[in-house]
Amino acid sequence: MPPANFNPPPARVVVLGGGFGGVYTALYLERLIDKGAPVEVSLVNRENYLVFQPMLAEVIAGDVGILDTVSPLRQLLARTDLFVREIESVDLDRRVVVLGAGLTPQTQELEFDHLVVALGNVTDFRGIPGLPEHALPFKTLADAVRIRNHVIEVLEQSSVVRDPDVRRTMLTFVVAGGGFSGTEVAAALNDFVRRAVRDYRSIPPEDVRIILVHSGEHVLERELTGRLAAYATASLAEQGIELMLGERLVAASPQSAVLSNGRRISTRTLISTVPSSPNPIVEKLGLPSSRGRLQCDATLAVKGCAGVWAVGDCGLIPMPGGEPCPPTAQHAIRQAKVLAANIVASHAGARRRSFAFKGLGKLGGLGHHRAVAELPGGVRVAGLPAWLMWRGIYWSKLPGASRKTRVAISWLSDLVLPPHPVQLNLGGGRGATQAHYEPGETVFEEGDTGDSLFMILSGRVEVHKIFAGEAQLVGMLGPGEYFGEMALLGRRPRSATTRAASSLDLLVLPASDFSALAESLTEFRSEFEEIAKARAESDAARAASGPPT
Amino acid sequence: MPPANFNPPPARVVVLGGGFGGVYTALYLERLIDKGAPVEVSLVNRENYLVFQPMLAEVIAGDVGILDTVSPLRQLLARTDLFVREIESVDLDRRVVVLGAGLTPQTQELEFDHLVVALGNVTDFRGIPGLPEHALPFKTLADAVRIRNHVIEVLEQSSVVRDPDVRRTMLTFVVAGGGFSGTEVAAALNDFVRRAVRDYRSIPPEDVRIILVHSGEHVLERELTGRLAAYATASLAEQGIELMLGERLVAASPQSAVLSNGRRISTRTLISTVPSSPNPIVEKLGLPSSRGRLQCDATLAVKGCAGVWAVGDCGLIPMPGGEPCPPTAQHAIRQAKVLAANIVASHAGARRRSFAFKGLGKLGGLGHHRAVAELPGGVRVAGLPAWLMWRGIYWSKLPGASRKTRVAISWLSDLVLPPHPVQLNLGGGRGATQAHYEPGETVFEEGDTGDSLFMILSGRVEVHKIFAGEAQLVGMLGPGEYFGEMALLGRRPRSATTRAASSLDLLVLPASDFSALAESLTEFRSEFEEIAKARAESDAARAASGPPT
Repeated sequence: MPPANFNPPPARVVVLGGGFGGVYTALYLERLIDKGAPVEVSLVNRENYLVFQPMLAEVIAGDVGILDTVSPLRQLLARTDLFVREIESVDLDRRVVVLGAGLTPQTQELEFDHLVVALGNVTDFRGIPGLPEHALPFKTLADAVRIRNHVIEVLEQSSVVRDPDVRRTMLTFVVAGGGFSGTEVAAALNDFVRRAVRDYRSIPPEDVRIILVHSGEHVLERELTGRLAAYATASLAEQGIELMLGERLVAASPQSAVLSNGRRISTRTLISTVPSSPNPIVEKLGLPSSRGRLQCDATLAVKGCAGVWAVGDCGLIPMPGGEPCPPTAQHAIRQAKVLAANIVASHAGARRRSFAFKGLGKLGGLGHHRAVAELPGGVRVAGLPAWLMWRGIYWSKLPGASRKTRVAISWLSDLVLPPHPVQLNLGGGRGATQAHYEPGETVFEEGDTGDSLFMILSGRVEVHKIFAGEAQLVGMLGPGEYFGEMALLGRRPRSATTRAASSLDLLVLPASDFSALAESLTEFRSEFEEIAKARAESDAARAASGPPT
Repeated sequence: MPPANFNPPPARVVVLGGGFGGVYTALYLERLIDKGAPVEVSLVNRENYLVFQPMLAEVIAGDVGILDTVSPLRQLLARTDLFVREIESVDLDRRVVVLGAGLTPQTQELEFDHLVVALGNVTDFRGIPGLPEHALPFKTLADAVRIRNHVIEVLEQSSVVRDPDVRRTMLTFVVAGGGFSGTEVAAALNDFVRRAVRDYRSIPPEDVRIILVHSGEHVLERELTGRLAAYATASLAEQGIELMLGERLVAASPQSAVLSNGRRISTRTLISTVPSSPNPIVEKLGLPSSRGRLQCDATLAVKGCAGVWAVGDCGLIPMPGGEPCPPTAQHAIRQAKVLAANIVASHAGARRRSFAFKGLGKLGGLGHHRAVAELPGGVRVAGLPAWLMWRGIYWSKLPGASRKTRVAISWLSDLVLPPHPVQLNLGGGRGATQAHYEPGETVFEEGDTGDSLFMILSGRVEVHKIFAGEAQLVGMLGPGEYFGEMALLGRRPRSATTRAASSLDLLVLPASDFSALAESLTEFRSEFEEIAKARAESDAARAASGPPT
């Protein structure tokens, strides 16, 4: 036992991640520092704010100001060193975290005595064809703003489009996943779009479809009891949301969402809230984990490495009964309090506490001033009372008085002021992207305006041209071949129709990038010019000799 | 003369542009339609909102909500057909406007009897080396949000950087142009940055520099009388803004702003409010113009083509005295009223009115609750009274009661609530960009983390490597050659230092685009691999034979 006047050097704690788990750990550590605990805290996060996830769906609908769902970390954490950087790697042997380069092109190392892993999970659309390329994720503030921008873009475009089928496709919005996120997004979207179309004289309101795809029998059935899940399902249906239950998303393309029953829904808007996977940094730690969650004991210490702790969704933390703690903000906040105390205790060689919190209940918004809630003791609330409770509880949890005031003002304003469907498009180059097409889908039609070049990564493409009023198959392209270059080089409309002859994956190079590369890389340009010339000659020969028979 | 009961078909009016001139023309036409005028109005604009430009500087500082400076056009213009599209071309002979492709890849034609050109001017940084690549424009809402994001990024990065010189460079903000925009941006930036750094414990407040570069002797000297311009200049200086007067920007790079006296200011933030040039669509009309402004008579009709009108900044409209009308919102709004009446009169074969408005005065914000104002009759106001007047007048001009309420709430909240320096980064790929370096500037250093490939468009690059602790010149690259591929192919730190041996222009391909292209274009990849191999071999040979002498 050290003597009473022994002062160990302060424990250097590095917290990875700025969600509820990470931020509240730093916050509780700061309180212990105020009481004299010898600790120094650093927090690493990609953003300089904490996102209040339960309110993100309201950003889509414009019910709160865009920045009101987030709290600046520096204002929350006055005594924590904040590093707004990517995490490059963690070296558990040397006990350093390597931060990626920022505005300066150098990595930076942070030494730690205690490492708090609070990285949650990430959206991962791999494994479903077309999902990474064509589905909108819904997890971060940027995701919510992008969905909002896209929805407004679709409304604008559908108001001037002349083909009613194209318009109906544009006005079909598909949300995949019937958990809390999925139902909140579908409900917010339904409220917003149906309210916003009133400003668009040329859009028939009945063309709007909001579809929620869910693999179970009822939405929220994993989150709530059967009766409340049934109530939630009925409530969404009543608001005009089409529920496609017992189905999963199996593929996506720029034009459609494909379900497990083979049904193809024509849409330009697919939002997926389903797959989330462990953060790659957590995976690379090489510590014992289960489905990407780090195995912890009840004191939140990660098994297999002293001084490493986990909190929130990325930890598999046993509850008193033995089952794992559910991944919710209320649990993360309680874990953080125990964790902060345990780090200090561990540093002082004192005894650590065990996490023992059973949850205060569950709440979910259903749009249109309705919600469902399940409270301890089996109390269930639904409808407007649950909605008022939902808003009230979330509001009370907002960190910081100024945030509370701003949000209260926003909500009160929205009771009297109309919504403002304004896009916040920051533009900028897109760079090279990928695209997935399902068999039979058209990539572009003869006569279309062309703004990209396509390279085939896998699959085949049929090329059709119209001769004497009739479409004829004039070619078949395979992996490694490109198409679309004729329209870009000549700045003319597309000279042929291209269609996926199989499941098709493409690399898409936007015109701006193509021009930049073609201008500076002469070999690059001449290669495309040769192909374009050969294709134009073959077209000319075919046209001269009459339609193929 | 047609008989009294003759009903001509309605005049199809197409308005190009959604600034004050265009929007108010549509608004006044709607009022005339309500009174029975036989007119149909369409308006084409890139965004679905009107930007309230005088308030944009407040977006940088977060004094108003991001979306509070804009008004949704659909809510302002209930009886106008709105087309949120790019304008592809205007065919004056066929009297159609061709709209670019949207979500659907087809162009669309709009027929008109009367064309209202209200396209203002655009930011054009060409002509000053490095300005298009490295200066931030300040004209649109997206520009303001981008500046805000960039400034917050710089604050975050400078708080964790260890080299004090690098930190001071990051904390130096340069604004070019001492007109209304430039002074408002510099003042807003000064208020915001000096307030925000209080949250960053590791940033020494004295490292912050806000520099305003202006070619004249006083800021606002072209806009105001001498005495007020002198007051404005003194007021900015007093707030700690460094004024560099009698200077112009002559070049920019990722690391610096170069002035006409040869001085090079190390900075990561250069905002330019200076060059604006005619909209390319206006230029392509081929109508008589002077410095890109369409020559009009006093009835706002463009000379040389019946049925074409101009309003706002893109028209050269004579005032009663003969001199051209200044390009301000107050003039555009008055022009719009005359123009709407003249279009209806013209269609009915009646007499047109002449524009005769002399302006109500001039107002400019100077930050820190100060402004300057010049009213008719030679009345001049400065300081807090002018600031209150400035806010009051702009507030009263905000279109729509709900916008007024939102902004009033924002302003009142900001009196009591702290600012919220939260970044709104929508991410997304960057694509290929260009970069300009001044002679002697470093592109990257040996050991840096590499995330881009560079191709030389013009100029020369010195390559240095450290052998036995000493930097040696190992190569010189010229136009058409590339560098930086070794770090990308091998994912290692940069293996050499590269420096501009002359004025240098580069094409920059980000790692993500490089990988996408390298994966799908085998020739592309093998070309770089060969160069990298040759360079690695030559490095190895050099290292084996000892340092060059």
